[in-house]
Amino acid sequence: MIHIFGGVILSAVCFLPTLSDMVGGLKISPIRRVAALLDQARQKQNLISFGGGAPSLPPPPEVVEHMCQLIEVEAKGACSYTGTRGIPELRELIAEDTRKWFGVSYDPEKEVIVTDGGTEGIYCAFMTLLNRNDEVILMDPTYLGYREAAKIAGARTKSLSVSVGKGFQPDVEDLKDLISPSTKLFVLLSPDNPTGRVVESDFARALVDLAEDHDFWIVSDEAYKHIVYDADHTPISGVKNAHERVVSVNTFSKEASIPGLRLGYALAPPEVVEAMEKIKQYISLAPNSLAQFAMVRFLQDGTKERYLKETVIPTYKKRRDFMGEQIHRHLPEARTTTPAGAFYYFVDMSSYLEKMDRTDEGFADRLLVRKSVVTIPGSYFGEGGTQHIRLTFVSEPEERIRLGFEAIDEYVTSYTF
Amino acid sequence: MIHIFGGVILSAVCFLPTLSDMVGGLKISPIRRVAALLDQARQKQNLISFGGGAPSLPPPPEVVEHMCQLIEVEAKGACSYTGTRGIPELRELIAEDTRKWFGVSYDPEKEVIVTDGGTEGIYCAFMTLLNRNDEVILMDPTYLGYREAAKIAGARTKSLSVSVGKGFQPDVEDLKDLISPSTKLFVLLSPDNPTGRVVESDFARALVDLAEDHDFWIVSDEAYKHIVYDADHTPISGVKNAHERVVSVNTFSKEASIPGLRLGYALAPPEVVEAMEKIKQYISLAPNSLAQFAMVRFLQDGTKERYLKETVIPTYKKRRDFMGEQIHRHLPEARTTTPAGAFYYFVDMSSYLEKMDRTDEGFADRLLVRKSVVTIPGSYFGEGGTQHIRLTFVSEPEERIRLGFEAIDEYVTSYTF
Repeated sequence: MIHIFGGVILSAVCFLPTLSDMVGGLKISPIRRVAALLDQARQKQNLISFGGGAPSLPPPPEVVEHMCQLIEVEAKGACSYTGTRGIPELRELIAEDTRKWFGVSYDPEKEVIVTDGGTEGIYCAFMTLLNRNDEVILMDPTYLGYREAAKIAGARTKSLSVSVGKGFQPDVEDLKDLISPSTKLFVLLSPDNPTGRVVESDFARALVDLAEDHDFWIVSDEAYKHIVYDADHTPISGVKNAHERVVSVNTFSKEASIPGLRLGYALAPPEVVEAMEKIKQYISLAPNSLAQFAMVRFLQDGTKERYLKETVIPTYKKRRDFMGEQIHRHLPEARTTTPAGAFYYFVDMSSYLEKMDRTDEGFADRLLVRKSVVTIPGSYFGEGGTQHIRLTFVSEPEERIRLGFEAIDEYVTSYTF
Repeated sequence: MIHIFGGVILSAVCFLPTLSDMVGGLKISPIRRVAALLDQARQKQNLISFGGGAPSLPPPPEVVEHMCQLIEVEAKGACSYTGTRGIPELRELIAEDTRKWFGVSYDPEKEVIVTDGGTEGIYCAFMTLLNRNDEVILMDPTYLGYREAAKIAGARTKSLSVSVGKGFQPDVEDLKDLISPSTKLFVLLSPDNPTGRVVESDFARALVDLAEDHDFWIVSDEAYKHIVYDADHTPISGVKNAHERVVSVNTFSKEASIPGLRLGYALAPPEVVEAMEKIKQYISLAPNSLAQFAMVRFLQDGTKERYLKETVIPTYKKRRDFMGEQIHRHLPEARTTTPAGAFYYFVDMSSYLEKMDRTDEGFADRLLVRKSVVTIPGSYFGEGGTQHIRLTFVSEPEERIRLGFEAIDEYVTSYTF
């Protein structure tokens, strides 16, 4: 192709047709920067990871065994298309499970849709609920996927700030100040990533009242609903009157330790599920068949209860408590709260970072290069996360958590004394 | 919630906040109607399916064995998150495979992205390439997912008609008439669903020239690139100068017989892959880990070649030829072409349907209810498919294809004589 500009022939230059304006405005997740640094660092022995938010346990043995059997005995069936909403058997078990744990009833045929992890649930919910220029209220800091998904849907976002001083609890009055006639959606993540906060029930009730008064939706990301250590947690869909304005987005990634299999589900009023199905048809057609059969087994015969009570919660709670002690001991000037749920400590490092003259990103980068310890910069989760770091406590056993903190201590001390 | 309209209290009515306008304009795939009829009909013994477009073979034994081993030996690894673009090993094998089969080179790091089947590839490509009100040219009839995916991206569609009289081959002059300054994208599916047509190389070359002259993209859906019986097929990305304006969308569903595992890939210039990755991050985060490991095995040690040459092509070709004879024998007034590739005969039934005073949808519905034979109405694939039916020849072995056609014959004869 030859383009002529003012008589100059630019024959070697390749001109692609343009891309969409929307995609130009999207950010690639900064977690990818960390992944790239990790790839380099992986050469080193003994990298200690407080980074990713992935479970460190294998899935329950019953699930593993069932998957093996399925593939061996009926490979064709295990690898065949299913319906867009997922197989009826799994949807029924999901509805039963939700009733059993949280006392909330959903119609498995009309109010349950199986998704490719929580991510597709969030995306389909946003595309279903949002018009261009609608306003979405997000907490700050919060999980970094919401803001970009809202952009794809053409919506604007507003931030409800939370901070370590108040245990990362949102304030109802602050929320009221943010609500406008354009407010269409509030996104709640509880237990939270990155802070581990479980919202208080007073806030949840007030939020449902406000959603009713101002006619907006609540998308409740329940990724960590079972990863709760101290708090008494009920998803907001269980709050009185919440049912018809809440889209509850769930994933099996954390509770069944199968993040790579990409399976989750959403619970919502029939109109919303119907609309989400329409979008999902043209995004992914149907959920992964084998992952669905595996999760049928997970929800049968008490497998899930046993796995959570005997393996997941005790293992992660011990690590949480241990990491809490380590923070107290090695970073006495840091400010944080003990996470009531999820996988993370969110640590305000400003006292150290000021002395070190480093940003949170600079700190995390250098700590990885110098001491082979992976942490995530807090600013990746929003402005409110500036000068914080996120530390995952589920990835490493206690002994390696201890080694990681000794390394952090050495690194910080070498700079601040 | 209580709403008061002119003093009347409507307390029992539930008012949901509104949904997005976009989703209101989307159609649920009409294939779902068929699925619902099927659910009812499944009670009956001996339902004969010429309906769905799914492979009827199990995946290659090497792939099945590898999946079993993976889950048994390293369940945690098999179920862990991978990168958004997919694991490097799979991307390298994809690039090597593409070079080997079609002589086209792609950089595995920058020009390959693993997707959740072809569906996610199409969706991410459309969201990446299209602005609102851009024009997309589709053939008519064509696969029904494109039109709705274009709607989600806010684009308008135009139809390039093809018909049985010309072997469903598109005409370059017709295409020229459709191109306007708003034309941003042409979608090519070859071999085609629903017609089985493989486009002639003259058309492919002319299309690339037009795309260059008028600066539009080509999305080439290569779902059936290996399911070719007679034709000498090279994907359009192999045409001279096509590389930088073609997004090649692929799936493992048909060639590895794993539709339920939802795995595919797209090949495109680096800028496009980078943009598609951004969208994918917020849609599905990452592809299914286990499916990726399985497809690594599929692309190693000649597994794919053996499976295609020894199992897939001979099995399906025999069935294609057999169904062709049956059509000729039992529906002598029908007009169709022998499909050079893919899974389908697309049959112009107008001669019969006029006598029967039935639409294609009415015919397919009644044939299912009366004779337990599943077919897909041609009008589902666009206006140009009116009075046609689509018959899948891969789903049933020859003996059952014969039974199906005897039933069709009885049904048609009972109406037309």
